[in-house]
Amino acid sequence: MKRIENFKSIIDKYNVIFFDAFGVLKTHQGLMPGIERTFAYLEAQKKEYYIVTNDASRSPLQLAQSYHNKGLMAITPDRIVSSGMLTKEYLDLKVDHGIVAYLGTPESSHYIESPGCHTMPVSEVNASNMDKVSALIFLDDEGFSWFEDINKAVNILRKRNIPVIVANTDHAYPLSANDVSIAIGSIASMVENIVGKNFIRFGKPDSQMFMFAYDLIRERRPISKNEIVMVGDTLQTDILGGNKFGLDTVLVLSGNTLPHNAETRIAATGIVPTYICDNAVVELGEFGF
Amino acid sequence: MKRIENFKSIIDKYNVIFFDAFGVLKTHQGLMPGIERTFAYLEAQKKEYYIVTNDASRSPLQLAQSYHNKGLMAITPDRIVSSGMLTKEYLDLKVDHGIVAYLGTPESSHYIESPGCHTMPVSEVNASNMDKVSALIFLDDEGFSWFEDINKAVNILRKRNIPVIVANTDHAYPLSANDVSIAIGSIASMVENIVGKNFIRFGKPDSQMFMFAYDLIRERRPISKNEIVMVGDTLQTDILGGNKFGLDTVLVLSGNTLPHNAETRIAATGIVPTYICDNAVVELGEFGF
Amino acid sequence: MKRIENFKSIIDKYNVIFFDAFGVLKTHQGLMPGIERTFAYLEAQKKEYYIVTNDASRSPLQLAQSYHNKGLMAITPDRIVSSGMLTKEYLDLKVDHGIVAYLGTPESSHYIESPGCHTMPVSEVNASNMDKVSALIFLDDEGFSWFEDINKAVNILRKRNIPVIVANTDHAYPLSANDVSIAIGSIASMVENIVGKNFIRFGKPDSQMFMFAYDLIRERRPISKNEIVMVGDTLQTDILGGNKFGLDTVLVLSGNTLPHNAETRIAATGIVPTYICDNAVVELGEFGF
Amino acid sequence: MKRIENFKSIIDKYNVIFFDAFGVLKTHQGLMPGIERTFAYLEAQKKEYYIVTNDASRSPLQLAQSYHNKGLMAITPDRIVSSGMLTKEYLDLKVDHGIVAYLGTPESSHYIESPGCHTMPVSEVNASNMDKVSALIFLDDEGFSWFEDINKAVNILRKRNIPVIVANTDHAYPLSANDVSIAIGSIASMVENIVGKNFIRFGKPDSQMFMFAYDLIRERRPISKNEIVMVGDTLQTDILGGNKFGLDTVLVLSGNTLPHNAETRIAATGIVPTYICDNAVVELGEFGF
Repeated sequence: MKRIENFKSIIDKYNVIFFDAFGVLKTHQGLMPGIERTFAYLEAQKKEYYIVTNDASRSPLQLAQSYHNKGLMAITPDRIVSSGMLTKEYLDLKVDHGIVAYLGTPESSHYIESPGCHTMPVSEVNASNMDKVSALIFLDDEGFSWFEDINKAVNILRKRNIPVIVANTDHAYPLSANDVSIAIGSIASMVENIVGKNFIRFGKPDSQMFMFAYDLIRERRPISKNEIVMVGDTLQTDILGGNKFGLDTVLVLSGNTLPHNAETRIAATGIVPTYICDNAVVELGEFGF
Repeated sequence: MKRIENFKSIIDKYNVIFFDAFGVLKTHQGLMPGIERTFAYLEAQKKEYYIVTNDASRSPLQLAQSYHNKGLMAITPDRIVSSGMLTKEYLDLKVDHGIVAYLGTPESSHYIESPGCHTMPVSEVNASNMDKVSALIFLDDEGFSWFEDINKAVNILRKRNIPVIVANTDHAYPLSANDVSIAIGSIASMVENIVGKNFIRFGKPDSQMFMFAYDLIRERRPISKNEIVMVGDTLQTDILGGNKFGLDTVLVLSGNTLPHNAETRIAATGIVPTYICDNAVVELGEFGF
Repeated sequence: MKRIENFKSIIDKYNVIFFDAFGVLKTHQGLMPGIERTFAYLEAQKKEYYIVTNDASRSPLQLAQSYHNKGLMAITPDRIVSSGMLTKEYLDLKVDHGIVAYLGTPESSHYIESPGCHTMPVSEVNASNMDKVSALIFLDDEGFSWFEDINKAVNILRKRNIPVIVANTDHAYPLSANDVSIAIGSIASMVENIVGKNFIRFGKPDSQMFMFAYDLIRERRPISKNEIVMVGDTLQTDILGGNKFGLDTVLVLSGNTLPHNAETRIAATGIVPTYICDNAVVELGEFGF
Repeated sequence: MKRIENFKSIIDKYNVIFFDAFGVLKTHQGLMPGIERTFAYLEAQKKEYYIVTNDASRSPLQLAQSYHNKGLMAITPDRIVSSGMLTKEYLDLKVDHGIVAYLGTPESSHYIESPGCHTMPVSEVNASNMDKVSALIFLDDEGFSWFEDINKAVNILRKRNIPVIVANTDHAYPLSANDVSIAIGSIASMVENIVGKNFIRFGKPDSQMFMFAYDLIRERRPISKNEIVMVGDTLQTDILGGNKFGLDTVLVLSGNTLPHNAETRIAATGIVPTYICDNAVVELGEFGF
């Protein structure tokens, strides 16, 4: 584990950079200040980069649009690998008919539509269509009535033995400087304990996220894992997952892991990044700005 | 483990009977048919009995009243031991000032009021009174907005290092013949995982429930554990808890554990009741009816 | 939570003191230096005291003898409440015939002998006597071959649906200044996961330990929980268990919880003692020494 | 889920077959009777096949040799994907110096030797070389003293913050018709709980196993996931992992999952295979035998 002063020197060592989104590129207030310089430098150096994110609330197109709206044009849909995309791939491969019931916003559900099936909010499942439900997806924590619809999801799963996908494994996410919000991953774990069945989870630290991004590169050119570095703010997802997949890893201290207790958290969890860096920002003056 | 045909013969063997409530004395539709004969027989034989229930939604007085309303007058408040009463005892002993915030119905909170504190729904906690919150209680699954107030409970517990009581450890409860409802115990476990702290749980199988009932008897006369039998429909709470406390136990098949898979469930869990009986009803004709 | 400079002032506030053993009265090297003054003061003030310990490796008589051998005569067998004694009580109440198989030293097993049963090391169970095994006890981490006998315990429990008692819930214990040893509680949890059954655990933080000590007092005189304080070095057992039982609690920093991270650990676990004190020693000069 | 009478018809539907080893190709007594016909048919039909196995006790060369010794020549080292190979890949990518300490047989350790490091049994780690230990591997349940070396592993991990690899995630494995043996995966979970750190696990159901086999095919030709079927006897590893990776799956009833309770287990776990088949054997007479 090595303390690195400037993030630019990490970019210089690798050909491909995987970035986590929240706590690295953006905060609850908007873009991480200065992050546009990082992408300008990446483009100038002709480095490849991907956003690898536990987010199923929107399609890659919508996610990219949200960066464009904030002024960061470098992040295009083909650069984004989300746990929602793995959910979509699973449905394409394994579910070819019936109703895919989901907890999440209606908008979040459109992009997971798969040939032969149609998506339906859990709230619309009832005695007459229950038999046609062929999968249930935990997509997002918003867009439904928690009391009504989480209870309904439990009762659907007691009656129907169908695959259940958790499209975002996070337990909570930051809402403001002081508050967090319960993520759909926590709700899914609660329901899993009640019904006693095994759900399928997509999202870091699981290898399938990293493999998906890795494959996007391999489709165009040969690549070796030691050309890639994973940059993230969370030990349990970004760093553990990156390490396990065989990548070098950078823990940045601009999000979940705070500067004053990073060392303590690393010692307590046994999750050791290759490097620690304050943030993923290329500093002013480092590169002709 | 012994299959018993008539419940009356179990009453004849013991001086004190502990009953679980749901699935034993009542169902989602009302009283268990014929259960009034069991209590008539207990009274006639001068046997002692207690209701030992994971229920914090109402005071003993209100719980007894709900039996009276259905026509069962034998169950008086002094016969009821609930996980809510243990919560009240904890607050009396350990919390002597400030606000006791709770998730549950307003009515459920009155009876846990303790000298020096006052109870307040989580929804009313805000930046100005947050510092005065001295305990948080998971009381019941109704009476609050799940989305708003469970999220608020998480954020209170991230800011205040206070005791947290789970007043009902059940994960789910039957709502109708086919559906269950998520119980406050499941919600508490989800929040505990998110905030990473140790909550205090009252309710079977924990020994403190049995001890509380045991002490009620001892206050009036000497008693030995082998004079008591625990009657319940749930292996993981009634039978495991009764066994561990050193009591003989009866599994009845009128609730959670179904006749066709009772043996399988006992083998799978390793929780072995002393007796199995169809229900806790004294049959017509067995006793002068 | 209040920082207390001298332990003597805590004794002055309560009528009964419950002590944990390891990290409070003794260390891996012998008695805690000066602890004899604490007991001299307790005797002089006519305070009651009990040792409440997760230890099933020896009988109360043998445990008391070990203190006498080190020069502390105040700790007599009737002052000791151990998780082994709860195991013995369970067997007396619930197991009246057959073989009680155990993992532990032969000496540790004698005192749990119960009328009608006899104890036998797991190593001596074989195809010819397997059918007579009526309970299995995880007593101690020594006195058997881990490879042979833990594997045999798994296979006994796959064939026999019998109660399983974990007589010591600790996960590890200190062996020297730098090293720990795996405790029988960890081995039991591993076996429980493999066989998928519910074991019965005795030992702090479970209430039954505290109740047993509480009952010893009540047999002689009326007592209220607020006359008692629990003194221990471990948040997850001594302090959590004491708090839950409704007692005031003192965390001492002479064992498992180290002075430099006590506050961090309390914040992380949410387990808050009533007091924190360096150790349980009455200082020289405080009381006529 | 579809009941299939003859395994041959499954081969006919796919281009690539992934097989689990234990309970599918072999039992504790040797090869599954008739399994040689399956491989003769696969060769005749020019189908590809791979053995995907949670086994780190031997190198692919040694594993293939064990099939040859039993007379099954079709299984060559390049057909085998084991969790041990993923461990070797991890070490090659992430550990470039120092001592790789392991629990397992000395023979099992040779094939994970990585440039710059050397492997050493945990028993040989001591105060003088402790500082050079750069990784610890849970390889196999044999070849070491459980009491001495599991305890030593705990103490190494309390002193050194290094990556820990669990090279076989199984909890137990069959030893004979009636007995199982605790696998290294269970021992690793016990140690992980004691030291409180996050270990890295390779082995089904984790996707990395399937990806490794998938990549072996892709190196030679284009392949789509729907050309592949995974055949296994265990719901929690073979079927869950295969499903999650997006493959069709066949549950065979010749190993862990028994014919009389397969339906119950599928309903209880929610892990639904695409097909159920008695075994993976092409029947006599089905194909010119």
